[in-house]
Amino acid sequence: MTTAETGNINAALSNPREDMAKLDELERKLFSLRYALGEIGSLGPVIDPPKATEERAEATAVLANQETELLLDPEVGYLLNRLEENASIIGQTRRYQVKILKRDREALLGIPAEEQEEFCRLTVTANDVWRRAKAANDWESFEPYLDRVVAALVSMAQHAKPDMDPYDFWLDQHEHGADRSLYDTFFSQVKDCVVPLLADCMASSRQPDARVVAGDFDERRQWELASDVLDLEGVDRDALWLGKTEHPFTGGPSTGFVIIAGHAYESNVLSNVFSMLHEGGHTMYEQSVSPDYRYTSLRGGTSAAMHEAQSRFFENYVGRSEAFSEQLVVLLRKHFPGQLGRLTARQLYMAENKATPCLIRCDADELTYPLHIIVRYEIEQLLFSGEAKAADVPGLWSERYKKYLGINVPDYTHGALQDTHWSDGDFGYFPTYALGGAYGAQLKVAMERQGVDFDGACASGDLAPIRNWLSEKIWKWGRAKDSAELIMDATGEEFRAKYYTDYLTKKFSAIYGL
Amino acid sequence: MTTAETGNINAALSNPREDMAKLDELERKLFSLRYALGEIGSLGPVIDPPKATEERAEATAVLANQETELLLDPEVGYLLNRLEENASIIGQTRRYQVKILKRDREALLGIPAEEQEEFCRLTVTANDVWRRAKAANDWESFEPYLDRVVAALVSMAQHAKPDMDPYDFWLDQHEHGADRSLYDTFFSQVKDCVVPLLADCMASSRQPDARVVAGDFDERRQWELASDVLDLEGVDRDALWLGKTEHPFTGGPSTGFVIIAGHAYESNVLSNVFSMLHEGGHTMYEQSVSPDYRYTSLRGGTSAAMHEAQSRFFENYVGRSEAFSEQLVVLLRKHFPGQLGRLTARQLYMAENKATPCLIRCDADELTYPLHIIVRYEIEQLLFSGEAKAADVPGLWSERYKKYLGINVPDYTHGALQDTHWSDGDFGYFPTYALGGAYGAQLKVAMERQGVDFDGACASGDLAPIRNWLSEKIWKWGRAKDSAELIMDATGEEFRAKYYTDYLTKKFSAIYGL
Repeated sequence: MTTAETGNINAALSNPREDMAKLDELERKLFSLRYALGEIGSLGPVIDPPKATEERAEATAVLANQETELLLDPEVGYLLNRLEENASIIGQTRRYQVKILKRDREALLGIPAEEQEEFCRLTVTANDVWRRAKAANDWESFEPYLDRVVAALVSMAQHAKPDMDPYDFWLDQHEHGADRSLYDTFFSQVKDCVVPLLADCMASSRQPDARVVAGDFDERRQWELASDVLDLEGVDRDALWLGKTEHPFTGGPSTGFVIIAGHAYESNVLSNVFSMLHEGGHTMYEQSVSPDYRYTSLRGGTSAAMHEAQSRFFENYVGRSEAFSEQLVVLLRKHFPGQLGRLTARQLYMAENKATPCLIRCDADELTYPLHIIVRYEIEQLLFSGEAKAADVPGLWSERYKKYLGINVPDYTHGALQDTHWSDGDFGYFPTYALGGAYGAQLKVAMERQGVDFDGACASGDLAPIRNWLSEKIWKWGRAKDSAELIMDATGEEFRAKYYTDYLTKKFSAIYGL
Repeated sequence: MTTAETGNINAALSNPREDMAKLDELERKLFSLRYALGEIGSLGPVIDPPKATEERAEATAVLANQETELLLDPEVGYLLNRLEENASIIGQTRRYQVKILKRDREALLGIPAEEQEEFCRLTVTANDVWRRAKAANDWESFEPYLDRVVAALVSMAQHAKPDMDPYDFWLDQHEHGADRSLYDTFFSQVKDCVVPLLADCMASSRQPDARVVAGDFDERRQWELASDVLDLEGVDRDALWLGKTEHPFTGGPSTGFVIIAGHAYESNVLSNVFSMLHEGGHTMYEQSVSPDYRYTSLRGGTSAAMHEAQSRFFENYVGRSEAFSEQLVVLLRKHFPGQLGRLTARQLYMAENKATPCLIRCDADELTYPLHIIVRYEIEQLLFSGEAKAADVPGLWSERYKKYLGINVPDYTHGALQDTHWSDGDFGYFPTYALGGAYGAQLKVAMERQGVDFDGACASGDLAPIRNWLSEKIWKWGRAKDSAELIMDATGEEFRAKYYTDYLTKKFSAIYGL
């Protein structure tokens, strides 16, 4: 008897009320395990002492395995099939839950449990090794872990979807429906726009002056500034814990408990400001998912790309707009009256938008940013295809930074060791940063067409109209709708990169007087 | 067929190698759930934002329920029976595991799962209510939660051991083998010693002078001092996270990740010092359990009383000794050279041992401390017997503080709302503080008899001989041995309160020139 037949028989015999109770019980268990994994995983890199790592790796692996076991229980398969066949009875929220649970289940079905558990252990250790390696500028110590992470990801993808290219599998995991073909097209449009535009900017006789925000800025005051930035942005502080880490991120276990870990650099006062706006965007998305979804698989953002769309929306479309500079400059003047007391909004706007090829992705301006992603996208493909090994990465990195950004990479710390993602096993994730950024341009145009006074909101410092629109169209839906559906519903059309390239062209042509 | 018969049949058919693998798998799962509960539970009160509470309560309840489900699985009962019958094959560590797992299982067997889950939810909420109530001096808001906590504990105890007095059940949970009869005897010996001794001290013409350590002390520097105190004590900082909270405690998920949450008061520089020595004792116990026990139920301390024996050992027997004052005074002078630069070891010793009836248990001196416990022990008994309700507690509290300590209780914050324990459902826990304190006196005499130069170690600031003795006799055993066995093995005799009362009499007679 096949699974499909069993499903039908079970549907015929099913008791929808009982099945819904079983679904709720399953979801509570999944919620509790994910809550634990979310808290342990998010806080680990921020607060755990060195000796915590080994036991944390073990606990994480076993908890993740319990989550997998729950999902893969054959009874759950039958349950989801029965619920699907009773779709008309179970209500919209449960229909969404069934869709997402089936998809989560299918992504795991073929992967041996030991392999997943081993992968969990591997990445906790790899992340720890990476943290030390980055601090010590020591590529060699991280190298074997990177090869093992890639090999494990390839193997898991082959188990899960034998007919699918392994890299496509992971691209799809981070953005449902995305593959190399989509990204190749997208990145080629981006390159066609950004590469000549950047060249024109660099050659222009009008150059923004970033020296107006140069200097050393007291770290403690930077954190006070960061706190004001989060308030201005509209993050719910009653559902936030703010910590410090090497590599900024947002995580956390629940709608009511989001964790931002940030990083302040004495020599760069804007770095933490835009990092906070970025993480604040992630945070508001997490905090604003419908309360109906709290204890279900629909909690959290729908995909990495849509998450990045929110974070980069507040970092760039809002944060680096001329209108918002009027608000930001007030905060900068308040916290650094001695150093920035005379800074004007216009000066800030120009400085924060100076296109400067640099080494660190997180510090990149809006224009050069996608080039950092293209470097990583290309290297990830080479690693997955076997054309490159971890040992080749620093060479590839240097070569491509030279080619796309025209700069030399002096060491590993500011090169291939700068990001945490690969050590966490997050391959296929970087491209979502660029794609999400591009989503934002289309969302901005749509909200303006629908009557949101975007510049007015930014200039006034009351971002509520922007937050409310995003909350209604995107945030509240959690994982219930995929990106493609959200974008179609919110903007009335499919994703088009043209909004993004038009935005970049218009903005940077104006700034550089092209 | 009865369970016992099934157990025998299963034993006959059993495959010990397979059973040992099953035991290991069970223990890994329990470890991972306890790790999650340990981290979420310890960090919750320290870092969680206000809106985190509800989802944390749910996650905690469901995780705890999964732990219970695992333990209560009938297959686990059969497995433990089979392993017990194969005791000669499975090795000493697994024999200890089986003993502890059976006991943990039996404590849960009769309690309905929903009731345990509900209790978990209740205490997370009650703790949150208590935190606010304490801050607002608002007994009324906490009152209904206290009644509900007691009712839930009585009900669970009646389910678990119908023939046992419910308060005895919880006393036994916190110290295996202890009951009201043991504590009644112990506290009566303590009262017979302390009440007249305290009266003599109060009446003495020689009074220690605490003004030498009075003043307002910068909080940031107090934390630097606290850090030095932990180093002097010998806590492994690579396996510690130090945070801040309202009510100091030690917790954490693993041997490699212990959490101390402390509290500094500007007006009391010694409070945080002795609190750190106390929590440091707990921490070293947790950190020093045999690595062989890391992923088993043997991890952690054997009981609340033995845990308190360690914390109070470092707080009092070491921390408030004349010899150790020579080290402590160096740190106080270093961090507060302006205020304490001329403080002598002798002055510090007298000041830190001034017997002063006070309102706050955590700030109590060594002599009056057990009286604070007796107040709580008596009120807990009244609540459990139904002779008192939560509404009566503030009155009982005032009356008994007057009777035993001779002082008036001005408000709830410094009265019945001062401690977190009841809001966490920890009834029967307070008595372990006093009992553990008394264990320490016997341990101290034993280690000296066995050649440890106690005063020499304290005076030199190298506590390694003391730590090593405790590590070998107590810490490394984790939960493998009960307190009674540990005390017998370490000291060669059963617990005797006389070591404790002799110690108090000798020490305070000398200080007060009696």
